[in-house]
Amino acid sequence: MSVTEATTGGDDRRAQAFDALAAQFGDRFSRSEAVRLQHGHTVTLLANQPPEAVVFAESTQDVAFAVRVCADAGVPVIAFGTGTSLEGHVNAPRGGVSIDLSRMNRIVEINPDDLDCTVEPGVTRKALNAHLRDTGLFFPIDPGADASLGGMTATRASGTNAVRYGTMKDNVLALTVVLPSGEVIRTGSRARKSSTGYDLTRLFVGSEGTLGIITGITLKLFGIPEEIAAGVCPFESVDGACRAVIATIQSGIPVARIELLDAEQVAACNGYSKLTLAEVPTLFVEFHGTKAGVAEQADLFGAIAADNGGGAFVWATRAEDRSRLWQARHDVYWATQALKPGWRVTATDVCVPISRLADCVVATAADVADSGLIAPIVGHVGDGNFHLTLLADPADPEMLGRASALIGRLNLRAIEMGGTCSGEHGVGQGKLKYLEREHGPGALDVMRRIKHAIDPDGIMNPGKMPG
Amino acid sequence: MSVTEATTGGDDRRAQAFDALAAQFGDRFSRSEAVRLQHGHTVTLLANQPPEAVVFAESTQDVAFAVRVCADAGVPVIAFGTGTSLEGHVNAPRGGVSIDLSRMNRIVEINPDDLDCTVEPGVTRKALNAHLRDTGLFFPIDPGADASLGGMTATRASGTNAVRYGTMKDNVLALTVVLPSGEVIRTGSRARKSSTGYDLTRLFVGSEGTLGIITGITLKLFGIPEEIAAGVCPFESVDGACRAVIATIQSGIPVARIELLDAEQVAACNGYSKLTLAEVPTLFVEFHGTKAGVAEQADLFGAIAADNGGGAFVWATRAEDRSRLWQARHDVYWATQALKPGWRVTATDVCVPISRLADCVVATAADVADSGLIAPIVGHVGDGNFHLTLLADPADPEMLGRASALIGRLNLRAIEMGGTCSGEHGVGQGKLKYLEREHGPGALDVMRRIKHAIDPDGIMNPGKMPG
Repeated sequence: MSVTEATTGGDDRRAQAFDALAAQFGDRFSRSEAVRLQHGHTVTLLANQPPEAVVFAESTQDVAFAVRVCADAGVPVIAFGTGTSLEGHVNAPRGGVSIDLSRMNRIVEINPDDLDCTVEPGVTRKALNAHLRDTGLFFPIDPGADASLGGMTATRASGTNAVRYGTMKDNVLALTVVLPSGEVIRTGSRARKSSTGYDLTRLFVGSEGTLGIITGITLKLFGIPEEIAAGVCPFESVDGACRAVIATIQSGIPVARIELLDAEQVAACNGYSKLTLAEVPTLFVEFHGTKAGVAEQADLFGAIAADNGGGAFVWATRAEDRSRLWQARHDVYWATQALKPGWRVTATDVCVPISRLADCVVATAADVADSGLIAPIVGHVGDGNFHLTLLADPADPEMLGRASALIGRLNLRAIEMGGTCSGEHGVGQGKLKYLEREHGPGALDVMRRIKHAIDPDGIMNPGKMPG
Repeated sequence: MSVTEATTGGDDRRAQAFDALAAQFGDRFSRSEAVRLQHGHTVTLLANQPPEAVVFAESTQDVAFAVRVCADAGVPVIAFGTGTSLEGHVNAPRGGVSIDLSRMNRIVEINPDDLDCTVEPGVTRKALNAHLRDTGLFFPIDPGADASLGGMTATRASGTNAVRYGTMKDNVLALTVVLPSGEVIRTGSRARKSSTGYDLTRLFVGSEGTLGIITGITLKLFGIPEEIAAGVCPFESVDGACRAVIATIQSGIPVARIELLDAEQVAACNGYSKLTLAEVPTLFVEFHGTKAGVAEQADLFGAIAADNGGGAFVWATRAEDRSRLWQARHDVYWATQALKPGWRVTATDVCVPISRLADCVVATAADVADSGLIAPIVGHVGDGNFHLTLLADPADPEMLGRASALIGRLNLRAIEMGGTCSGEHGVGQGKLKYLEREHGPGALDVMRRIKHAIDPDGIMNPGKMPG
């Protein structure tokens, strides 16, 4: 039975659900093909699987209404933020309704004394930081894309600043969640810590829309540092760069960002961002603190780098210089794309204990070379987390197959080294097949029990985690 | 039916289970009254409720065996560490078997490059730090008592260093857990971050033995700071001290400890620890960093304190001076006890958003005065977390009732101020009745669903969370 049959012929309850949603939401309900296709896909090797309909929610009550209607009819529900996920999180393999949360973009409250704020899920990280600018506060988590904070919460996102400020797991204080029944709960308070009850906040962070829909997020904020310094250091080898990272972390230098680009990635950035960096393994670093503190951190790092085969460490505190550097870092996706315009770019990530990072990067670079593919490496190496950005000709199924196989080997390599098949992108559809290998059947069974206990009818983002 | 009848008369399966445990564990199985009483109680206002038997486990396999035997017979299982919990976590209201984990005290591995270690649950925090001394690393979480790391994990403990290093939630990378079925799972890897699967690690952290028994813990470690400075600052008022704390946190000073003692607590410490502090609201602070960094932090803090009615801020880096200060801080329990030898000391804790801290402390101090009880206040105020240490004559039921009522009002006050009825001690039996008020019926129902999904027969620490 095709999706069309399921939605028009055989299932009156489904049709009635869509009618009810149309009546409630008017022009905020759409079944147009263009809207459906836009909500059924993100940047992956996976095929587009559109939902049957899209609701544009503007409040928790809207979400609760839509979920109740869908629950009554057994219709799948898929949360949608800005569509920047990388592993097919929003694909709709079983049809259903995509709930677009991008219009829930209000900043509900800022509490400067408590260093926290509460936002709706459609607020993006850049919008939040623009709003905060005059308060002297900022929200540090930065996955590169201007993702929604709801999506970042749902995928347990992190990025360049995580080595100092942690991931979404560490920076979400509490959530408002619409459960699969349509009931609304709050998972915690604004207290900085609590020892009461199971940690529902952390259960929903990273649950990828499979347990409920996040409609409110209370986040930690931080004071904008008095001084920020950023710099670049070339290395003779990936191994030397990794050893410098380990020594930096061990020595307690509170580095705010420490990113490794392999020679190929540096070359791509030189081309795209008009830089003139030596095309060797390179660390991009950033320090936050007082003027004196930042200078001390930079000096200590420079000495550690020199001990590990690093070349001249150049650092600057001028905002323009720093911005240029980090813009280049954030543009690696586009820099890689520019190497082969028209080819498909696929970003994948893994994370390993930092002691295995050099081994994993070196083995992966050799695998890339053997595969004949173009795939620069860049990583949040302070956390042991790195990305392959693969290029493949979409018209060449054999090459796409080689890319897919390379990703598969990378995932298994990371798991075998005691790591994880995703440090920050999440599972979605792309990494589902590695979950049991990583967690073992017993832990996966616990996840399935939790899923069934909270979503007994399996309507929340079906076909995804925990599988 | 009495416990004795249940265990000897009416339930052959129960008796067979005890026989099976006796056969397996020999002299590591005990039903002696002294051993049972020792395992049925900790420091609380609650009555002792001993288990029917105690197993001294020495391995994950021992725990799995005991849990399987108990599960087959429907016998409750209660994990026991060092017996330092404060809310009746180990009481056995439905009888059953206490599994004493104190002999599982091996440090399994230390990974200096990864700044992590794996320990058995009976290792205490002091034992771990003694073992680490030569590595240049340390484990920062410090709840005062020399608790077991298993107990600290199970109660989501924290303590004086949490303002800088976080709580157990932030410092546990992965766990080995024996499920209620006797099956053993691993909840994560040694990777610093992961976006794959539900966060089972955080689910078991703080689950208080109600979902499974923790038999292995992988923890983050930190480099011992190059320099540590500690100091004391008197304030005119609790409000001024709280405002100084808020300004310190907001300004980004990475304070490692910041503790408030009210005038009564300072007086108690002067008496017990032979200090000569002014008997006014006082902040104890500690800074970690480089020599220059620590000096800068201390100077910045001194200026902030002065702006908020603080007196002379005296700080020192000599280990002896620091130790004397923090020993006095850690001895507040005994200092309070010394005010009324023979009376019962009850410690309770709450946590509120830091902007409400002064209100909550001032209202609580007034309530203490009205109640006619002796109850000094001390707190981890950088997190908005504080404790009442109540004294009551155990021979005076009316006074015990007043103490209990005071605690009740404190819990509700914290919840009404947007906080939690426990920042770090946990729920146990003592705070069970506040869970629904704090979390709401919907969130509590989700917790119950999770409990039922993982422990369908309710054998793990029954009569406790989620109720």
